[in-house]
Amino acid sequence: MIRERELGAFVVADLLNVEYLTGFTGSNAAVMIAASGADDDHISTDGRYLTQVAEQTPDVHAVIARDCVAELVGLAGASVEAIGFEAHIVTVAGLRDLHARLSDTGPSDRLVATTGLVEGLREVKDPGEVELLRRACAVADDALAAILPTIAAGRTEREVARALEWEMFARGADEISFETIVAAGANSAIPHHRPTEAVLAAGDLVKIDFGATVAGYHSDMTRTYVLGEPAGWQREIYELVAAAQRAGSEAMVPGAALADIDAAARSVIDAAGFGEYYVHGLGHGVGLEIHEAPGVGKTATGTLPCGAVVTAEPGVYLPGRGGVRIEDTLAITDAGREVLTTTGKALTVL
Amino acid sequence: MIRERELGAFVVADLLNVEYLTGFTGSNAAVMIAASGADDDHISTDGRYLTQVAEQTPDVHAVIARDCVAELVGLAGASVEAIGFEAHIVTVAGLRDLHARLSDTGPSDRLVATTGLVEGLREVKDPGEVELLRRACAVADDALAAILPTIAAGRTEREVARALEWEMFARGADEISFETIVAAGANSAIPHHRPTEAVLAAGDLVKIDFGATVAGYHSDMTRTYVLGEPAGWQREIYELVAAAQRAGSEAMVPGAALADIDAAARSVIDAAGFGEYYVHGLGHGVGLEIHEAPGVGKTATGTLPCGAVVTAEPGVYLPGRGGVRIEDTLAITDAGREVLTTTGKALTVL
Repeated sequence: MIRERELGAFVVADLLNVEYLTGFTGSNAAVMIAASGADDDHISTDGRYLTQVAEQTPDVHAVIARDCVAELVGLAGASVEAIGFEAHIVTVAGLRDLHARLSDTGPSDRLVATTGLVEGLREVKDPGEVELLRRACAVADDALAAILPTIAAGRTEREVARALEWEMFARGADEISFETIVAAGANSAIPHHRPTEAVLAAGDLVKIDFGATVAGYHSDMTRTYVLGEPAGWQREIYELVAAAQRAGSEAMVPGAALADIDAAARSVIDAAGFGEYYVHGLGHGVGLEIHEAPGVGKTATGTLPCGAVVTAEPGVYLPGRGGVRIEDTLAITDAGREVLTTTGKALTVL
Repeated sequence: MIRERELGAFVVADLLNVEYLTGFTGSNAAVMIAASGADDDHISTDGRYLTQVAEQTPDVHAVIARDCVAELVGLAGASVEAIGFEAHIVTVAGLRDLHARLSDTGPSDRLVATTGLVEGLREVKDPGEVELLRRACAVADDALAAILPTIAAGRTEREVARALEWEMFARGADEISFETIVAAGANSAIPHHRPTEAVLAAGDLVKIDFGATVAGYHSDMTRTYVLGEPAGWQREIYELVAAAQRAGSEAMVPGAALADIDAAARSVIDAAGFGEYYVHGLGHGVGLEIHEAPGVGKTATGTLPCGAVVTAEPGVYLPGRGGVRIEDTLAITDAGREVLTTTGKALTVL
């Protein structure tokens, strides 16, 4: 795709795009893709990664430099005219540096802004990527099953979060996908709550949003439990969110408009009169990033591609009282949906 | 400092700068600082953080929007002329959106590029910040002391890393500072090695680089141990790195040129003929970010300000054999240096 554009070279600055294209995982790198062919591609990283770059990308020419993007733009500028760069990644100040670097080899207006080229490729997962996502989700499912019997009144949000993370690591997680959310009682009404020393108490909703990474690929799942017999309002919003989550999931077919998928779930919550308490979109792509394209929300444009892996995660949050979110990660194919997060979603009393 | 510039408003897009200025910790936010005074300052975040923004910044006007930076630029554009933005944070594509937003209220060339304004303030830590850094370092010191007796032949790099992280959390870490490095044997020659299932063996150098965060502030420390009686070459590079680390630390006085501080450590290693195996700078500032200004390296410009908190972390890495890095986090004041990471640095055989 990239080689087909009218660019002599395309310099990739985003680290995850670099990892996606080359497998290199260092914390400072850029890649130059040459229109003339893969033999002219280059990767740049700094001296800390001398050994690692040789191991991970033995077939790509490596350039050791501190300022990787500028280095590769300079290299490209010596031999080609139009050089593509990632306008959604390179900062305004960064572009100024690239212009300066090119001034040695001709006019600097040869830099061509592009957006989302590699991210577009990343939206569609190949079978190897889906397998890694499946494994990441299995790690999370198994870890939650392991700690579920220990979630009880008297424990703190932090203890539950740390125990869950420990179990994910024990099952082969490379990292946690994002800061684990364990939110009890009124805290569960905060969509993105950071675990505190708050003690779980009978009657609490306990919302747990977490994930593991395996070889860089993220899982994402939310479950909400009740400690003790649920109150009427807790049962009501739980069943409502579950119904919205089913409706949103079922709308996830290849080619569906992203905004329509969002609407399928949102209309369920709106119809019940809780629309104002559902303050975010339905979901997002998951892969090398925890949030990546496609975003599934009210104002999303575009459609769901075959091969996408996305979350469906509606929620209802009643400030000061409590909230429920239920989230799965799903792989979308022409053959149907595969729910990668397999933990049960029936209302569960702990 | 910001209000003194010839800007009608300054829009802060960097999330850590937002946290530094306001205390808000959500994952999507921007702040507008108004020249007309604090009463006209605004913070913007999205609906997920409705509750949190009211709790964390009760005294700042909040604007709920998805695209926070553009929202605040639009707001500022309605009443002031020159609007500063962070050119090192805002992307080329992002700036295009800001121009579009301003087109309703007059010429869009009112956007003024700035770099590093808030980061400059963040270089100098106040006593409250130093106390949080001290606590973060103490958590790391204590956690390392707790696991040291368990580091032995037969354990894997990953097990050691996970145990260390568990102990940091148990001691009050909010998060780990960065992906914990545990690198044994030849892996210790990789400056930034990710822990694997590699099994520690007698004769290995074991390099451990890790940290904890407390209330957003990071600690950073590296220690290198030997499993069993050290070989001559291991003792040699250990003592060399230790001497360089002392020399670099002692050069850290307020007002010293950053490049001179780097040279103080580097010259020790160069003089011993190991210069080519020391492939990175001496250190970096530590605070709300694990790497922040000032960078202490060969090509650094500027001087070390009084009140900086920086690392001193030289290393020697012999590819295929092993490497040593020794790193402290230090608070620099006119009264002298305070070493915040207090774990001993004498060659320790496990």
